[in-house]
Amino acid sequence: MKRGFGSDNHAGVHPLILASFAEANIEHAPSYGTDDWTEQAIEEFRKHFGKDAQVFFVFNGTAANVTALRALTRPYQSVLCSDVAHINVDECGAPEQMAGCKLIPVPSTNGKLSVAELEKYFIRRGDQHYSQAQVLSITQPTELGTTYSVEELTALITWAKDKKLFVHIDGSRLANAACFLKKSFKEITTDLGVDVVSFGGTKNGLLMGEAVIFLNKALAQDFKYIRKQSSQLPSKSRFIACQFISYFKNDLWKSIADNSLKRAQELYTLVEGIPGVKLREKPQSNAVFATIPSTWVKPLREKYFFYVWDENTFECRWMTSWDTTPEDIQGFAQAIKELSR
Amino acid sequence: MKRGFGSDNHAGVHPLILASFAEANIEHAPSYGTDDWTEQAIEEFRKHFGKDAQVFFVFNGTAANVTALRALTRPYQSVLCSDVAHINVDECGAPEQMAGCKLIPVPSTNGKLSVAELEKYFIRRGDQHYSQAQVLSITQPTELGTTYSVEELTALITWAKDKKLFVHIDGSRLANAACFLKKSFKEITTDLGVDVVSFGGTKNGLLMGEAVIFLNKALAQDFKYIRKQSSQLPSKSRFIACQFISYFKNDLWKSIADNSLKRAQELYTLVEGIPGVKLREKPQSNAVFATIPSTWVKPLREKYFFYVWDENTFECRWMTSWDTTPEDIQGFAQAIKELSR
Amino acid sequence: MKRGFGSDNHAGVHPLILASFAEANIEHAPSYGTDDWTEQAIEEFRKHFGKDAQVFFVFNGTAANVTALRALTRPYQSVLCSDVAHINVDECGAPEQMAGCKLIPVPSTNGKLSVAELEKYFIRRGDQHYSQAQVLSITQPTELGTTYSVEELTALITWAKDKKLFVHIDGSRLANAACFLKKSFKEITTDLGVDVVSFGGTKNGLLMGEAVIFLNKALAQDFKYIRKQSSQLPSKSRFIACQFISYFKNDLWKSIADNSLKRAQELYTLVEGIPGVKLREKPQSNAVFATIPSTWVKPLREKYFFYVWDENTFECRWMTSWDTTPEDIQGFAQAIKELSR
Amino acid sequence: MKRGFGSDNHAGVHPLILASFAEANIEHAPSYGTDDWTEQAIEEFRKHFGKDAQVFFVFNGTAANVTALRALTRPYQSVLCSDVAHINVDECGAPEQMAGCKLIPVPSTNGKLSVAELEKYFIRRGDQHYSQAQVLSITQPTELGTTYSVEELTALITWAKDKKLFVHIDGSRLANAACFLKKSFKEITTDLGVDVVSFGGTKNGLLMGEAVIFLNKALAQDFKYIRKQSSQLPSKSRFIACQFISYFKNDLWKSIADNSLKRAQELYTLVEGIPGVKLREKPQSNAVFATIPSTWVKPLREKYFFYVWDENTFECRWMTSWDTTPEDIQGFAQAIKELSR
Repeated sequence: MKRGFGSDNHAGVHPLILASFAEANIEHAPSYGTDDWTEQAIEEFRKHFGKDAQVFFVFNGTAANVTALRALTRPYQSVLCSDVAHINVDECGAPEQMAGCKLIPVPSTNGKLSVAELEKYFIRRGDQHYSQAQVLSITQPTELGTTYSVEELTALITWAKDKKLFVHIDGSRLANAACFLKKSFKEITTDLGVDVVSFGGTKNGLLMGEAVIFLNKALAQDFKYIRKQSSQLPSKSRFIACQFISYFKNDLWKSIADNSLKRAQELYTLVEGIPGVKLREKPQSNAVFATIPSTWVKPLREKYFFYVWDENTFECRWMTSWDTTPEDIQGFAQAIKELSR
Repeated sequence: MKRGFGSDNHAGVHPLILASFAEANIEHAPSYGTDDWTEQAIEEFRKHFGKDAQVFFVFNGTAANVTALRALTRPYQSVLCSDVAHINVDECGAPEQMAGCKLIPVPSTNGKLSVAELEKYFIRRGDQHYSQAQVLSITQPTELGTTYSVEELTALITWAKDKKLFVHIDGSRLANAACFLKKSFKEITTDLGVDVVSFGGTKNGLLMGEAVIFLNKALAQDFKYIRKQSSQLPSKSRFIACQFISYFKNDLWKSIADNSLKRAQELYTLVEGIPGVKLREKPQSNAVFATIPSTWVKPLREKYFFYVWDENTFECRWMTSWDTTPEDIQGFAQAIKELSR
Repeated sequence: MKRGFGSDNHAGVHPLILASFAEANIEHAPSYGTDDWTEQAIEEFRKHFGKDAQVFFVFNGTAANVTALRALTRPYQSVLCSDVAHINVDECGAPEQMAGCKLIPVPSTNGKLSVAELEKYFIRRGDQHYSQAQVLSITQPTELGTTYSVEELTALITWAKDKKLFVHIDGSRLANAACFLKKSFKEITTDLGVDVVSFGGTKNGLLMGEAVIFLNKALAQDFKYIRKQSSQLPSKSRFIACQFISYFKNDLWKSIADNSLKRAQELYTLVEGIPGVKLREKPQSNAVFATIPSTWVKPLREKYFFYVWDENTFECRWMTSWDTTPEDIQGFAQAIKELSR
Repeated sequence: MKRGFGSDNHAGVHPLILASFAEANIEHAPSYGTDDWTEQAIEEFRKHFGKDAQVFFVFNGTAANVTALRALTRPYQSVLCSDVAHINVDECGAPEQMAGCKLIPVPSTNGKLSVAELEKYFIRRGDQHYSQAQVLSITQPTELGTTYSVEELTALITWAKDKKLFVHIDGSRLANAACFLKKSFKEITTDLGVDVVSFGGTKNGLLMGEAVIFLNKALAQDFKYIRKQSSQLPSKSRFIACQFISYFKNDLWKSIADNSLKRAQELYTLVEGIPGVKLREKPQSNAVFATIPSTWVKPLREKYFFYVWDENTFECRWMTSWDTTPEDIQGFAQAIKELSR
């Protein structure tokens, strides 16, 4: 496959993370999360999320979300999320089937939830006929590449806590949000009262691996059983752990997030003003959303792969990753310019 | 951790499999199973299981079993399996929760099912009050290290087909069975009428990764949705695929299975006859089951880790793996001898 | 409780249906649906829905809907329904938990679905990340008291069949629709290609009891297990059956539906034009939706109970039933008139 | 159908209970459990089970068991029950599908559990691979017609409480046990520390209706949602309630239980000693278990229906009910005698 802007999971493994496998591949280690690497990786997470964080590794992002929701809900409860939330439209109904709960899609603007809209869907408390809202799930950054500011997050979480809802962050790209906001992970989660984070690794340079991080310690009590029963207990746990150890070492996570953010912003700057290209706002994460003439799609995709986000409007999503280079950006922008002539 | 005989998932990654990551880690690849490595790995599987095999990668063994059972059953149906089957006693209820179906544990001898016992549990056909048997699940080799002969398999499968049951093989160590029986994979699955195989990689030298192999093609029709909804669709699929490519290349799978079988047999030979050691039959896979005096457990485990299988009788399971060396075996046997004096 | 307009399930049992219990209460009868009354009741249903109808009794409306959806879907599939559908907002998440499937709420007008809106939600066919639409569920009459015309139904069902979707009718008040449309049950279901009907009894004068009617015979094949596993197999089945026998005898069903429709239309006529009362369209079923000044609610409810449908606008639902009398209507209209002075 | 000994749910409705419908069938009543009859019936239950009892009506026995288990377990937990328990072999997998939990069948003697056997199955606490026992479910009287003495119950419950398990009673015929033991309901449940009772009505003269009774009040907190989501919220709740009001009035429950117990004991006495008839112990409930020559089954069933309990041994279950008369018993015993000549 050509290099491209299809998704940050089209990129491979960051070399420093790849190297971690050889380091961890010595002798025997106990399985199922009782090895030293796992312990060390959890300690790394605690440096970033606070010393009480309870951390569990799982295989992928769907699992991080679904197992977290299983811990937060009973089947007669529901999860408020944005109408474009990954859990609502990209998990093939996994939350409903695996947790039994109901998702309540709330209208969003540029991928973001607002208290005003949430209010309209927080209804019928105590009514036995109506699935009772129990969780607010926030994707940070959103599926449309926007990032909630600390103020926006605070407003949503304050509202949720006032309603006695748990707060879940779908953070498959949380590092990108931290990087864009110039905040620590703790400042955008633990300090704001978030209960659980689905923390992504796969889209940020890992081979595979995600973490479910309970900041509300009590909720983690039975999570080991939930993880196992959900088929998400890695036997050779050390090989997920070692990746995260490398990911946090020397702030590798930050340089990965920085690179993808900068490349996206460069792309935005280079294509802004090209006739025929209609852009959303400036990137707040590693994606540029651009509407282009339908005739451009085929020739452009022959050079660099990407997805058409909306098949009606021909809005496209151009996604950068840890390995996107300035040359990739320049080549892509150049190709667009040529089509616009 | 010391080297030991705890489990074949305590061992690390085989060097040739580890090397495959670097080979696959070039440029971008489409995600979710549409990349070239995945295609090539599937072709490798077809060489071993027949050209119609439908192959899907998942993360771990629990998932391979549970997603296979989801494809084979509706929730009002049941799965006949041995009372010591991994799906029955080691998945924390995952089949029941994720597939909704019921497991019917059938008494076994040395881990093996028999037609005579199965008959007793194949009852109440058409009775709406009783969950209807739909699948026979066979673990090969069994959880107790025994391996069904081709004749034994044929008898079970013939019975199942006669009853219109689907046949599932839990083959997390299927390579060991093939090696012990000196048969190809096809001869012990496809040719006998098996419908689906959970094929293990993690316990055989991979970092992680298993395959669900549909030999009955029709059953695979909607499996991509089942896999995704079960949180088992790997995004960077190429990195599971590349491991299997290496695993099959130059019959690496065979040398891995051979090594663990030979080491287990060596261990058996060396400890046979040591006063105080009571052995089950000769290893038919990579495990030796031995009952030893309870006072030996602690000093022996200080040198080599292993699990006590039965806490009442002090029967222990000593498991070899791809990296077990003759020196490991000699050292362990020596330590046992010293305790027996 | 005072008489009122709260719901058709606030009314009791029609005397002729109550009498049926004594008739069926003789000697012993086999349980679980194998008695003569059950057989006879099924024959009655076949007179109305066609000779191939497969009929199963369940206890209540939630069950009729959920068990029908369990028969029509696998958990990775979804059900298109109106955003105000009972299954979406009044079953406490039962379809999601019991069937595992996902509901896709489609915007509606006066409770009705349209092909134009459905098209927008029939997306991503074959995309493994997206729960695949499998069923179109139509409430007839709708939750807002409107009734689809035969032409409207035909348009929806033609569209669904073209998309290879199953068609489910939530018909907890289907008799009212048949009565309003002056059609037989068959003309508004079987003849149009409907696959399954949830047929209501409880809201139409029964003590309790509903029927799941498969017009698509093949779909009923395993339904007896689904019903039992969903806790919906009545043991003393004759006592649900006998009610339906009486319900169909001498067209009792029609006189019940007629009465509630006529009373609703009378109420509409009497309150139309009263200053302060804002009405939706003329009743097409047994409900009048009326917006009244908020200050009227309390005094009016002291005389006749009813529900405020929308707590923001003070739109109220006034529902008639088999036992609503012309005197009830006159008294209620009079009370409204007095408030409007 | 002839009169017979098939099951206590082959009998009809007790006349005094049937009469209750007409009494409750006046004017309108609020639906979904908020009516006066429901309140009054709950008060009746509290007289028998203690003033803190939380009572919820459901439609049938499967539902009473399954909704109770949903309240007591999370899906990664298991329920210890006897191998012949109704929940294990006669609910078509409903507990597994609806609660997601696992059942652990424990070997029983004459239908009864013992602490010695339970101990063997209470294993692997804290092991994430193993579904964790959370509930002990006891059927009283058992499926084999035996009744636990207060001492036996005390032993089981003391053991369970020591293990921090919840105790559930499947009491579809609990009145028969109370009657046999000459104890109040409270003495055999609340006073012993039982947490939840599935209390049967249908098999004891009701048309249909069961109650889930929480003696451990805290467990009832969210039960209204569980009931609704399980499709078990009766809309015209007054018609289940009125039956239970009559059932408790003037100790009708006791005379019903007494009659069925006495008739069973009479039958036992009359057939004891008839050559060819092999009996289990003397009836402790409303069933006689008798092994008879296979050739007797057909001619005997032509006169009085009953079930062959074990198709291998031709052990039969002869079940009495509220309406069994001394004449029925004499006629049946006579028929047996004639066959034995």
